Amino acid sequence: MCNFNELFVGRKAMGIGMENIKFENGRLYLLDQTRLPNEEIYITPETKEDYYYAIKTLQVRGAPAIGIFAAYAMALLDGNKKELKAYLDSARPTAVNLSWATDRMLKAFESEKDLISEAISIHEEDKAMCRKISEYGLSLLKDGDGILTHCNAGALATSEYGTGLGPLLLGKERGYNFHVYSDETRPLLQGARLTSYELEKAGIDVTLICDNMAGIVMKQSKINAVLVGADRIAANGDTANKIGTNSVAVLAKYYNIPFYVLAPYSTIDYSCESGDDIVIEEREGEEIKRLWFERDMALPETKCYNPAFDVTDNKLITAIITDKGIIRAPYKENLEKIK
Amino acid sequence: MCNFNELFVGRKAMGIGMENIKFENGRLYLLDQTRLPNEEIYITPETKEDYYYAIKTLQVRGAPAIGIFAAYAMALLDGNKKELKAYLDSARPTAVNLSWATDRMLKAFESEKDLISEAISIHEEDKAMCRKISEYGLSLLKDGDGILTHCNAGALATSEYGTGLGPLLLGKERGYNFHVYSDETRPLLQGARLTSYELEKAGIDVTLICDNMAGIVMKQSKINAVLVGADRIAANGDTANKIGTNSVAVLAKYYNIPFYVLAPYSTIDYSCESGDDIVIEEREGEEIKRLWFERDMALPETKCYNPAFDVTDNKLITAIITDKGIIRAPYKENLEKIK
Repeated sequence: MCNFNELFVGRKAMGIGMENIKFENGRLYLLDQTRLPNEEIYITPETKEDYYYAIKTLQVRGAPAIGIFAAYAMALLDGNKKELKAYLDSARPTAVNLSWATDRMLKAFESEKDLISEAISIHEEDKAMCRKISEYGLSLLKDGDGILTHCNAGALATSEYGTGLGPLLLGKERGYNFHVYSDETRPLLQGARLTSYELEKAGIDVTLICDNMAGIVMKQSKINAVLVGADRIAANGDTANKIGTNSVAVLAKYYNIPFYVLAPYSTIDYSCESGDDIVIEEREGEEIKRLWFERDMALPETKCYNPAFDVTDNKLITAIITDKGIIRAPYKENLEKIK
Repeated sequence: MCNFNELFVGRKAMGIGMENIKFENGRLYLLDQTRLPNEEIYITPETKEDYYYAIKTLQVRGAPAIGIFAAYAMALLDGNKKELKAYLDSARPTAVNLSWATDRMLKAFESEKDLISEAISIHEEDKAMCRKISEYGLSLLKDGDGILTHCNAGALATSEYGTGLGPLLLGKERGYNFHVYSDETRPLLQGARLTSYELEKAGIDVTLICDNMAGIVMKQSKINAVLVGADRIAANGDTANKIGTNSVAVLAKYYNIPFYVLAPYSTIDYSCESGDDIVIEEREGEEIKRLWFERDMALPETKCYNPAFDVTDNKLITAIITDKGIIRAPYKENLEKIK
């Protein structure tokens, strides 16, 4: 078992710019996402096993947040840094940001830079990136807008503002009143557990709906724009994101609602020509049948199909909003310009 | 508490034409739907309280099934039939089929008809209706088709074949091999608990998916037709059905997949000009946040919007399949013809 210090924070409003990772007085605090929304508990990892466990068990999740967390680990933990990097990377082998951050920290160590400063830089750079995306995104919205979002691309997954939710948090600071509908996002319910939590805490008007209700709120003219994050963007603008995103885009197109993808420039994979080149991770069917439920919701012999992501065709996307600006169709040409 | 005799059936294959209501040797057997899919238990209601409780607590659900069940109650229970009808009707006041069936039984009693025969007639008429819909529906499908369905419009909700699932069960009998994808249908999971159960038991290839995965299986060309039931069909063909149905129809349109509504002629409400006249029931938000989950999935203060149904515009519907035949656009004119 891990020897965590647990700091019970309770249900206090954390306000805008929720700090999922805090570095204070030489100590790192992490908001344990596995306990949300029922308990707000900051843990203070101390040993390398504590850091590994936090990444592995999704106490910290979201590519940028994992990178920031691992950067602090590299700075704060003693011992052989090369071995430490390999150990931390192995906690989530497919997380590109994780190995990117530990690599940068290892290079800083080899150049005898101050590691704490380097970790803080990574953290600050992420905040700056999120702020830029938020500013660009907010320029496309107006006070009073109804917004639909899917999954979680907020501060909990990044730092401070987030990407997909960034314009909403920044807008709130500037006095905008948005009415946000959050898809619960089956099977893992990030929309229910994280997005509705995060927006509620920031004082933003948020309503939780099941994924199959996105169409009715659009039809009822409650939605002026859809904001989502992205896991990977191909060179032609096709966008991989949490399963269900593509369906939301089809619905938005049908109801003439702008559909915006918000993601860091680093999400664009120029080596990937189109969405056809993106392999969709399939997860275990048990996640659908069992997880979160008190009892099985289908027969043990029932097959499940559980793709974790889908690809939204570029023609369904109104604009891709990155820290390098707002990109519109034709995506292939316009994404090439910011390369 | 109710003094039910419980007959444990266990996980044996019940085969095609699952009998949710069985009348054998003067006794009525009801497959308790609240125990599915984990336990297959037939209950044998005896007192009028047993029947009331079964309707009230959804041990029997689906408009036609409730009507059949109540008809047998009227036949089998002694005492004042008029009072019995009022008592049974009060178990689910908005279920039109319930009062329709008890009314017909009361009239049969007043005309001194044999009540057991009358109840069996109601049951047999429902089977005949389902069979007709199934035949018409099957004429639109071919062996090997991939089918998407939403919610549950099968034998469990009606008798023998069901409506939306009827062509699949009938086709199976005739040697068709369908590949069915069943939306789990949040928030109450009828697709997971009932549809995937029913089809699995009938030996039909069924795969359970989350509602937000309907789009990806269509995009992957796995779906040749969508089959759904209906709660109410307006005179212009606009169709109210379980929440999420309209979104599935929009997706089907986008991917050029035929979208079929299957329902008894009695579902057509000629007094209702269009879908705009259909009031959508809104249910408690707790159903989204809490029901079926081990712990709360959102903050207590998080608002939820929980419409139980939506309306699918007639222009998204390829055909409406009733026991009076297959109706295509223009719906207003063609529905008028079968009035």
